[in-house]
Amino acid sequence: MTSPIEQRREAAIRIAHEAGELGLKHFREIETLTIEKKGHQDLVSNADRELEILVRERLAEAFPEDGITGEEHADRPGTSGFTWAIDPIDGTANFVRGIPAWCVSIACADAQGVVVGVIREPSSGETFAASRGGGASVNGRPMKVADVSSLGEGTVGVGFSNRSEAKKTLKLIGDIIGEGGFFFRNASGALMLAYVAAGRLIGYVEEHMNSWDCLAAFLMIEEAGGTILRPDPDTMIKSGCMAICGGPKLYPRLEQLAQDAFGHIAR
Amino acid sequence: MTSPIEQRREAAIRIAHEAGELGLKHFREIETLTIEKKGHQDLVSNADRELEILVRERLAEAFPEDGITGEEHADRPGTSGFTWAIDPIDGTANFVRGIPAWCVSIACADAQGVVVGVIREPSSGETFAASRGGGASVNGRPMKVADVSSLGEGTVGVGFSNRSEAKKTLKLIGDIIGEGGFFFRNASGALMLAYVAAGRLIGYVEEHMNSWDCLAAFLMIEEAGGTILRPDPDTMIKSGCMAICGGPKLYPRLEQLAQDAFGHIAR
Repeated sequence: MTSPIEQRREAAIRIAHEAGELGLKHFREIETLTIEKKGHQDLVSNADRELEILVRERLAEAFPEDGITGEEHADRPGTSGFTWAIDPIDGTANFVRGIPAWCVSIACADAQGVVVGVIREPSSGETFAASRGGGASVNGRPMKVADVSSLGEGTVGVGFSNRSEAKKTLKLIGDIIGEGGFFFRNASGALMLAYVAAGRLIGYVEEHMNSWDCLAAFLMIEEAGGTILRPDPDTMIKSGCMAICGGPKLYPRLEQLAQDAFGHIAR
Repeated sequence: MTSPIEQRREAAIRIAHEAGELGLKHFREIETLTIEKKGHQDLVSNADRELEILVRERLAEAFPEDGITGEEHADRPGTSGFTWAIDPIDGTANFVRGIPAWCVSIACADAQGVVVGVIREPSSGETFAASRGGGASVNGRPMKVADVSSLGEGTVGVGFSNRSEAKKTLKLIGDIIGEGGFFFRNASGALMLAYVAAGRLIGYVEEHMNSWDCLAAFLMIEEAGGTILRPDPDTMIKSGCMAICGGPKLYPRLEQLAQDAFGHIAR
């Protein structure tokens, strides 16, 4: 018999895939979308709302007693002990401009933390998935973080939003380059985090992320053998968190970079 | 009757598509590739070489009298007045690490400059194409650069390689952020340039690019109504060039940013 967690992992994969296909349909007709500005980067499209409704409906059908929290709609409390955090389109700024780097991110947590994380990138057809204690995979193949110990051995994802301080992010990028490393910013935080889990990027640092943007990926990175700055569960859902993650050998250097750039480490 | 230039545009689309599918096959079996390091970012794989051979063979079959220049193999001189510049995999660092942002770039030039530019991104299934005087398109739909006049209205692609000076690129990013803009770096210069032509990024700046990385995209940007720093034809094939491009209203600001960051504008 499939465990409650594995049932949720399988459902999340199926639902993320369906939502991604709906998103892709809108993405291809992007010129027809009504774009509603809410700040420079935080563009919200009809598609974003429609995808969130679809994911919420599918989750409510499959697990009527689970709670749901998300970016656009009011929270739905649950009674099962499981709560879903959904980001129907991560990388909305890419989505509305026609850049293919965007994804659907779905996480599920119990009282001990995240139990399931799924990220679907429809443009490339990749599904990243993890369950607590069950490992992490991309399209069914096991994922493993990069086994490197210095910044010169790869590329670090750098997150930057209108919640970041420009000077601090610049200091971070400067320190990465200064040690012979490269930086990467494709404007989808969840996707860059999934790339860390897959060993494609050697790490990721961002001053502030919202919980629905990073919860699924954080589980993947841990299940792929990586280290993350574990956010404070009491504040992270409402206030978000700092994101620092990478392979275990590189992680201490990444945390030091964040300390130097941001002046503190915020759990 | 189709003109010699349109014949070459059609052939380049067909050949870039075929090379992209071969690349995608290798990309999906990436774990099996033998990666040969030639500098941090400049990883060369068997796939890169195989794709270049395929493109060279197909071009030689279709246009036996045209010349060919490329990244990996010796130049083949021609007698027709047309010379091809090919970059079989732009974004090799992404390719070898499993990040889907890579493309095949094919350009053709005559004595007056570039006549055909084609960029194929196999992971997303997009083909960007342009011919001199014939406009620019993505998957057959016309492309147009973003009609913006300030950095706060979008995202600027920033190129950075081991040929760039770290401090200068940091200054550039700082100035972009300082004016309320965002930066983007997905580690494929040709793809980011194609996104400028498509109006997805509002501009692109890089201290130094090789000719085969940018020739196809430069034509697209001009044919999509954009402005580029026109490289000196006498030096660009051998020595590469600085890349500055965007919509005509934003272009002067981008050139000033490059001047401030790099200390000069190099044609």
